[in-house]
Parts: sequence; C-alpha cells; structure tokens
Amino acid sequence: MPNGRGLTPALCLCYNFSMNLSSLGEFGLIDLLKKEFSFKNKDVVLGIGDDCAVVRTPNLKPQISKQPKTAKSKLLLITTDTLVENVHFKLAKNFPFEKLGEKALAVNISDIAAMGGIPTYAVISLAAPVNFKAEELLKLAKGISSLAKKHKISIVGGDTVRSTKELMITITMLGEVEEKYMLTRSGAKVGDAIMVTGKFGGPAKTKFDIRNSKVEIRLKEGRAIAKSGQATAMIDSSDGLVRSIQEICKASSVGARIETSRIPKAKGASLKQALYGGEEYELVFTGSPKLAKKVGAIVIGEIVTKEKGIFLDEQSNQVSEGFDHFK
Amino acid sequence: MPNGRGLTPALCLCYNFSMNLSSLGEFGLIDLLKKEFSFKNKDVVLGIGDDCAVVRTPNLKPQISKQPKTAKSKLLLITTDTLVENVHFKLAKNFPFEKLGEKALAVNISDIAAMGGIPTYAVISLAAPVNFKAEELLKLAKGISSLAKKHKISIVGGDTVRSTKELMITITMLGEVEEKYMLTRSGAKVGDAIMVTGKFGGPAKTKFDIRNSKVEIRLKEGRAIAKSGQATAMIDSSDGLVRSIQEICKASSVGARIETSRIPKAKGASLKQALYGGEEYELVFTGSPKLAKKVGAIVIGEIVTKEKGIFLDEQSNQVSEGFDHFK
Repeated sequence: MPNGRGLTPALCLCYNFSMNLSSLGEFGLIDLLKKEFSFKNKDVVLGIGDDCAVVRTPNLKPQISKQPKTAKSKLLLITTDTLVENVHFKLAKNFPFEKLGEKALAVNISDIAAMGGIPTYAVISLAAPVNFKAEELLKLAKGISSLAKKHKISIVGGDTVRSTKELMITITMLGEVEEKYMLTRSGAKVGDAIMVTGKFGGPAKTKFDIRNSKVEIRLKEGRAIAKSGQATAMIDSSDGLVRSIQEICKASSVGARIETSRIPKAKGASLKQALYGGEEYELVFTGSPKLAKKVGAIVIGEIVTKEKGIFLDEQSNQVSEGFDHFK
Repeated sequence: MPNGRGLTPALCLCYNFSMNLSSLGEFGLIDLLKKEFSFKNKDVVLGIGDDCAVVRTPNLKPQISKQPKTAKSKLLLITTDTLVENVHFKLAKNFPFEKLGEKALAVNISDIAAMGGIPTYAVISLAAPVNFKAEELLKLAKGISSLAKKHKISIVGGDTVRSTKELMITITMLGEVEEKYMLTRSGAKVGDAIMVTGKFGGPAKTKFDIRNSKVEIRLKEGRAIAKSGQATAMIDSSDGLVRSIQEICKASSVGARIETSRIPKAKGASLKQALYGGEEYELVFTGSPKLAKKVGAIVIGEIVTKEKGIFLDEQSNQVSEGFDHFK
C-alpha cells in the first residue's frame, strides 16, 4: 500500500511503493535512503552522497569552531564497499583470491583518495558458505593484508558470518584529511578544466574479469591534487567516466563539455566502453588546467553552465546514464 | 597444497589448509585472520578480538603521549556486524522489515555499549536482489533510522549493491569513549564478581525469530558500569553467556565459577538455552559486587584462577563451547 508518511513531497513525486529495486535503480535507491537517513548531528561535515562521509573526530570538537581551517585540523573520512559473488566476480577453478582481496581493499582506498585523504584503518566483514576452503580464505586475507601494509593501513576488526551460498566481502575504511585540503564532488566552477588521471574502458572490455583486473590506486595523485590548492572538485570513476562527471555536475550545479577525442582509452576499448564502462578507479577532477601537467593528468573537457547540460563535443549530444547496480 | 608461508609456527600447528570453514570454525577463523592482519600502526589501541576496535583519532596524536588518562581524551571505537538472510533471519509473508533494520543497528550499538562507549556514526552496506521491493527496503531503513535517531547516531553513508538471491546487511558503527573509562575483555581479576544485566535463553527458545526479537540495548548500563570505575572487564553476550565468560577469561588469563542457580532465565528457557543460546545482547562484566545494585545487574559467579578453568557450580563441571557461526 502506498504510504507517504515521513517522505518529503519531492520524493513522493518520483517514488512508487510497489516498485522493485530494478525499476527504482541504484541512484533512486540512494536518494531514497538519503531522505530516510537525513538526521545528522553537528559534527557531520558531509553525509551520504560523496565518495566518503566526513565527520569531526571527538577531540576536534572544541577546537574546530574557534580555529580557522589549517593543515593541522584533520577530519575523519569513512567509506564502505561490498563485493558480491556472481555480481562483482565469479568463482572458478584457480580463482585468484589474492586479487579479489586486493580489489576489495583498493576500491575503498580509491574513495579515500578521491577526497584528497590518507587511509588509516579498515574493518572487514566476510560472509562465506561453510564449505569455503580455509586455504582460499587465507589467500583472500593475504591479498588484503599485503596491500594494507603497503599503505600503512591497519586492519583492526571485522565480522565473520556464514552465508548459504555466496561469498561476500564488505570493507569499511577510515581515513583522514586536513580540513584545508579536503576535496568533494561540489565546488566545480564554470571555466574549470575537467581532468583525469588515467585510461578508461579497460575493465568494461574485459567484463570486470578479476583475473585481469589491476586497480591502480591514485592515492599519491589524489594527495597532490588536493594539496595543490588548484583543484575545485574530485571523484573516483568507479561508476564510469560519464557518471563521475554527472555526479560532479549535480553536486556543483554546473554542466560539462566532454571532448571525446581527448579521452585516454585503454588498449582495445571502444569510446562507449571508455565513457560508460566503470570499475577504473581513476580520479576525475576539476580546476586549473595547469594542474594536469603538475600531477600527470589529462584535460578531457571543461565545466560549463548548468543550463548547457552535460554533452559530448557538441551541445546537441547530451549524455545518457552511467552504470547502475540494480539495472 | 599445504603452504605455510607467512604463517607463524604456532598457527601452523593447529591449522590445516584443506580444512573448510565448517571444520575450522568461526573462532579458528578469527585467530587465523588475526595473525594475517597483525600489522598495526602506533595509534591502534586495540585491534581484532574485542567487541570494538579502538584507535586514536588524528587530532589526538600529539596530545596522547604527553597527557595522563583523563575523561577529556577520547578514543574512537569501530565495530561491524553483518546479518544474512536464511542464516540470521528468514523472509516470509508480512516479514517485519522494521524489526530487522532495528536489530541490524542494535547489535552494533551493543558492541559500543560493551566498551563503555557512546555510538556516534554508522555506515550501511546493503546487498539485495533486484526484485526486492522498495516498500520493504524503506521499512528496513525506517527501522534503522528510528533507532539511530533515538540514540543520536548519524547514518553518514553506505553502499548499495545487487545480490543474486539473498538480502544482506552490514552496518559499521563508530563510537567514542573516554580513555579513562574504556572497558575491554581483559582486566578481570581473581575474586571479581561476574555480573549480567538481564535474562538469558529467550532468543534461543524462539529460534532467533526476528518477529519476536527485542534487542534490549544496554547503552545506559554500559556507560554507568564504565564510569563507576569499579568494573574490570566487559563484553556483550551476543555469542551466548558461557562464550562471553570464556572470552573474558581468555583475554584476562583467569578462570570462572558460574553459579547456575543465579542465572536469570527468560520465561520458558531451559538452563542450556540460557547458558549457550546467544543473541541476547546483555552485558556481562566483572568487578566489585557492589556494582550489581548500582546498575541493576545480577551476580552470577566469580572469577577464579586460570588453573581452575571455567566451570558450572563444581570444578568438575567444566563448560563446553558456545555458538559458532560456521559449525
């Protein structure tokens, strides 16, 4: 039964209670949850809707209101990502569990990188069927721990539960970023260059085969971009290049012109794969075009007014939607 | 193929690579992961193995080494819990999704309570099949948000992914606790009273039926126990009363005498259900017996030397194992 209690009128307009997740879509679902979880205490700097949530840590509370933004006052970053068997990966003979562990951690590090931050701690929730081999699990753990050590991330806890059939890994990661350097999806200004840190379309081409996947983590680049003071917005490209630009535009109330000829494509990838593929974990950011040279990035477009929309090359080529987990 | 690389000799002794999770067991698995994730940076106060992980927050770093433990210097608590369909709950007609949401959050709050802390933020990872109804999801979200609001917990982010068949919810929660008040599983001393905040065996009796479940969150009690300065160790009883006492004994290097006649039992619950059932989320703690009256708890036993072991009434009645997720 339709029941609008607790929902804002704006949400009711686009929402039907008999819808399933497939028709609602991932982004519809996120909007729905964002409304439901709208309660925020005063120490929440940024809630649902960016690469990470940002909060003030307990001991910062008394200082923050009195002090100007400095490189010393740090904020806490929180992000979480889940990988599900038969959705994000398929188990097969000689499945590379180390790579799966590595990827599960890497996607979270990428979220921290997209805020300009440094990863610090992680907790792992693992749901596995009872016939799952200890050897395979240890490989998975080794994949996680080797990458964690490399980035000085401490795995401080977790939960291990039984699942009936499928393997599922959720990693929640904490990080920190100086209040002064933090970059979000909002902040892009008309005239800013749109830049990217690497090539697109590779994972789409290989259909996200975990065996061939290699998540390049742009942590160093993310820090350099944030600390330059010349960037205005940043996001990671996990849901695809176009979707990433759409998210920046939505959060910043701007439009974008994307120059397709300048998009760096992975070997063998089509333009469509590069635009809409996803799973690359490159950084997409806006700001002074001078930044591109400084951090080894490539300019692929320009921020325009919101009225112009988001388009490829010519304003008549308005872009379509990106990857949706539920569609 | 057996391959001991990277494992400590002690671990190799009890570990066989062809084992599956069923034979390894949840606690064997946790030990395994604890070894693999042994890297800790200097700000980790407590890693894997307690109700929460405890870390120093970024802005606390410079202060902590110079200052004595005060009620002002706060530590960050991190905990994560996963509920899996057909393992922790079974969907049926008119399934109470609000209750499921409530429980998913409550089990995490209980972990924070067990450290003597206050919950602050949470992120939610939700894996659901595409045919899952938006209406049901909203009920689930409402269950979470109403309890979150009650405890001033901000839901600051999450991840929504598709699963092929089953619903799975992972909540990671942050909290804070004054360094001075924090209670862990270790710290129990010979002669301490063993106390509990409520009745046992109810959930075991109802076979964890989510419809009849009512997670009492002992947040207020946990704070009172911690702030009394008269408690020495604390844990929540999610894995069962005996298991909780075993964990305190293991972490504190002590034994325990449990007086079965003093254990408060839920209506209709057998002694076995009360001892080994689990899912109660009461607090089990040790310290001065005077505390019991102060916080409305009940004394059910006494901490004895490690050599005496953990026994019911008479030393000859040594206890058996508690609930294991993989067995």
